[in-house]
Amino acid sequence: MEQKLLEQIVGQVLAAMSNAEQGEQAEKGIPVGVSNRHIHLSAEHVDTLFGSGYTLTKDKDLKQVGEFAAKETVTLVGPKGVMRGVRVLGPVRTFTQLEIARTDGFSLGVVPPLRDSGKIQGSPGIVIVGPKGAVTLTEGVICAARHIHMQEADARQLNVADGDRVTVTVNGPRGGTFANVLVRVNPDFRLEFHIDTDEANAAELKNGDRVTLAAVGEK
Amino acid sequence: MEQKLLEQIVGQVLAAMSNAEQGEQAEKGIPVGVSNRHIHLSAEHVDTLFGSGYTLTKDKDLKQVGEFAAKETVTLVGPKGVMRGVRVLGPVRTFTQLEIARTDGFSLGVVPPLRDSGKIQGSPGIVIVGPKGAVTLTEGVICAARHIHMQEADARQLNVADGDRVTVTVNGPRGGTFANVLVRVNPDFRLEFHIDTDEANAAELKNGDRVTLAAVGEK
Repeated sequence: MEQKLLEQIVGQVLAAMSNAEQGEQAEKGIPVGVSNRHIHLSAEHVDTLFGSGYTLTKDKDLKQVGEFAAKETVTLVGPKGVMRGVRVLGPVRTFTQLEIARTDGFSLGVVPPLRDSGKIQGSPGIVIVGPKGAVTLTEGVICAARHIHMQEADARQLNVADGDRVTVTVNGPRGGTFANVLVRVNPDFRLEFHIDTDEANAAELKNGDRVTLAAVGEK
Repeated sequence: MEQKLLEQIVGQVLAAMSNAEQGEQAEKGIPVGVSNRHIHLSAEHVDTLFGSGYTLTKDKDLKQVGEFAAKETVTLVGPKGVMRGVRVLGPVRTFTQLEIARTDGFSLGVVPPLRDSGKIQGSPGIVIVGPKGAVTLTEGVICAARHIHMQEADARQLNVADGDRVTVTVNGPRGGTFANVLVRVNPDFRLEFHIDTDEANAAELKNGDRVTLAAVGEK
């Protein structure tokens, strides 16, 4: 059998297994993924910060297919503070987006708007420093709105659709609900409820904890 | 009229006006009070940190009667970090209690338990440094569980009692509910929903914002 065909078949089998696993997951609840402050960089900004023609080095794959944590980090310099070791996520994007928690914003002296990923218009900028240079970002600093990544199979099982805003229920001593959670459906997505560190700490949630969707109409 | 009697009457009139105001407040919702990291000190620890016989200097009264923010601050030294300028709250207490957010705990390298104020048994310690000395606290570092201060009049109006655990509803883009909120009723209390900075940031709440109680049975 041709090598390429073999790889295709193996890929399809793995995808089918992964899908089956996803369906099983949704029944057990939605796993939590806590996003620490991080930055997505444009190719141009990678060049400025790390050197012309530089390629990001993968440190580890993230749960969302194709996304990875890079070995590279940057330093943020805001009006009120400096933050070192801020993780770069790959691959490169068409524009640079920095996602920080509100607590980080207070330390840095910036007040990012609460936005869905990609919606950076009118957001503040910041100075980003790398080993080979600095970028004065004019916009792109956001506080990422919580959302759930999922595939079609999960969406069917959970009875939701791409673009829905749902309410998530959290158990435990710091339990309660998160309202206005965006549902994002894509074949490359893996079931995961993304929150930032403020939200995780406020609800005593950590990576891999499980949450559920509140019944429709429930607040 | 005797000066003392006059003061008593004025005191009673002011208390009655305050109570009337409280009742009105509960109708408009419960005001939020965000607690930044702070420390309550024993008299013995005030002596060690600021000098023998030292008295805390009031900077401003807090909303809860008798409580004040002192001009004094301390430095916290944990296994992973140092935090300067941590506010001392007065008056002195029978034992020292440090209240920090979970985010602060990560910076300092301590994992405080989630506790109602005063319940410090088995909690971790930390090193506290003042201008005249240092205290190696053996226990007393907690993450304060959210709670609502109120008087009897508020409790009646809200249909709750001291010691109840209630659910609070928050509106807005980062809205939702906080479950397991302790109700604390005392004549010296003023209606206020106390949360820490992680909870405030996660829900986009600031001092003076209003929240409501969820209907009984609602989650």
